[in-house]
Amino acid sequence: MTLRTPLTERLAIQHPVLLAPMDIVSDARLTAAVSAAGGLGLLGGGYGDEDWLRRELDALAAAKARFGVGFITWSLARQDRLLDLTLERKPALVMLSFGDVRELLPRIQRAGVPVLCQVQTLAMAREAVAAGADMLVAQGGEAGGHGVGRGLMALLPEIVDAVGGRVPVVAAGGIADGRGLAAALMLGAAGVLVGTRFYASDEAAGAPAAKQRIVAATGDASVRSIVFDISRRNVWPAPFNGRCLRNAHTERWLGRELELMQNVEVESARYLAARQAQDFEIAAVIAGEAAGLIRDVQPAGRIVAGMVEQAEGLLARRGH
Amino acid sequence: MTLRTPLTERLAIQHPVLLAPMDIVSDARLTAAVSAAGGLGLLGGGYGDEDWLRRELDALAAAKARFGVGFITWSLARQDRLLDLTLERKPALVMLSFGDVRELLPRIQRAGVPVLCQVQTLAMAREAVAAGADMLVAQGGEAGGHGVGRGLMALLPEIVDAVGGRVPVVAAGGIADGRGLAAALMLGAAGVLVGTRFYASDEAAGAPAAKQRIVAATGDASVRSIVFDISRRNVWPAPFNGRCLRNAHTERWLGRELELMQNVEVESARYLAARQAQDFEIAAVIAGEAAGLIRDVQPAGRIVAGMVEQAEGLLARRGH
Repeated sequence: MTLRTPLTERLAIQHPVLLAPMDIVSDARLTAAVSAAGGLGLLGGGYGDEDWLRRELDALAAAKARFGVGFITWSLARQDRLLDLTLERKPALVMLSFGDVRELLPRIQRAGVPVLCQVQTLAMAREAVAAGADMLVAQGGEAGGHGVGRGLMALLPEIVDAVGGRVPVVAAGGIADGRGLAAALMLGAAGVLVGTRFYASDEAAGAPAAKQRIVAATGDASVRSIVFDISRRNVWPAPFNGRCLRNAHTERWLGRELELMQNVEVESARYLAARQAQDFEIAAVIAGEAAGLIRDVQPAGRIVAGMVEQAEGLLARRGH
Repeated sequence: MTLRTPLTERLAIQHPVLLAPMDIVSDARLTAAVSAAGGLGLLGGGYGDEDWLRRELDALAAAKARFGVGFITWSLARQDRLLDLTLERKPALVMLSFGDVRELLPRIQRAGVPVLCQVQTLAMAREAVAAGADMLVAQGGEAGGHGVGRGLMALLPEIVDAVGGRVPVVAAGGIADGRGLAAALMLGAAGVLVGTRFYASDEAAGAPAAKQRIVAATGDASVRSIVFDISRRNVWPAPFNGRCLRNAHTERWLGRELELMQNVEVESARYLAARQAQDFEIAAVIAGEAAGLIRDVQPAGRIVAGMVEQAEGLLARRGH
């Protein structure tokens, strides 16, 4: 038995497991490791930094690794050159999250590259498919980083019902092991997009102290707010906010966001310094509720293999 | 193949499907229908109304139906007689949600009745098991009515990892069909507790107009807030709030809760009148994100049979 799905067919991958393009954390090394394990790594293009992107794309080329690249749509839309740079390198896909894809999407498709659109509501799913998305990610509010609040359990099958006949739907949010992969398949997903579990991998470009916080955290210790966005002067419009692990900084400012705004000069400098010092009692570890399912830092390849093996085992055991 | 689990064994039921004890909506008729279909109906004791409870317990006795009863813990703790009345009728279980169970739990167990504790966080799960709970419900933030915010996808397996070796864990929130049941089993649940799907059943004691709103709603049209609690002068302490379908009243007051408090004399009278008039542009339809998966009002027995059949089919298809 293997977990073949429309996603594994479409992307010509062995396992229906994608690396979430976590900004900075999903660098070339982690991306290549997930692809080498039979999934597909997505480079974390994030807001877009040309030097970083060029360097990481070069590293992927040197490693002869298959890869995708993920961007924040509204940020990419202001930086045309990043997309050209990406398309030259023939990625297996480009993933767009957060924003209006109608201009960027045909440009990417004209280069022969499929577009994976991440959405957080049914309405966004319908818009993305109407705009021509080749595949969707349904991202539940459990996910780390930016998102909205709908839980994956109902959001995923609802999106599958609405558009699953036209495009494969990938599940994201709260998935860290084979149980989550098997559950996502039962809900109609064609695969999973996994962030936090890969953050706590050997290859991830995150600070060791951040990885250890993910290992130590329960899912209760995760919170969705605008505190870290205010602190780095990057507040997103509603309905978006960001999930991170609770720390001294979130405990200090949750519910006092206006006061944080009023003190943003001092606090943002303090936040930036903490980030550089890897002081994660102030700087955010951007991780999802799946942190509560993670008990160790592992090689990314072992994470992929373990997820798939566990999912196959669970499905086989219940299946007869 | 049948879906046998520690829950079906423990409760001697055919299918691992429990009716959520929705306040008023889960009356004797709906409870008996779910039990007759091979699941277990839980009467919605809610805040506790002695006349209502006695009448519904009488109806269940007359129907010779197996049943459980669910209460709001903090409310039941102030009304001793309701518990005595319930225990005299030998329910299959008592479910307690929201509050400290340490006093009530041993009283119930001394009567030979097992206790199912509903929890919304890992910390609450540990407390309930330490207090002696026989079974848990892990309730995700997708659920209608009162709750917290954690998504079921990560909460459920995290609770299973922590206490699943000691007690069966039932999944609640966002589950309306066989996909959700199969997914919950993959995540380690011993069964599911289903509310919104049974609200939209023929037998449910809800207004036909409320049922039609559930049928019409997408999951996007559901929101967690304290607006309806303020409006009926029943605000719960943090971290609890309540999920309902959006309507003119929520659109008017979301984000303006303090102003609603300031006008509560007028607004609560208006709200109460709307509830009596079944005007659901003001009164809340208390339903979860699973509303987006519900396209019709069905007999409860058909809902149970359909969920089980679909789950069995999905598991069999993937299982070899």
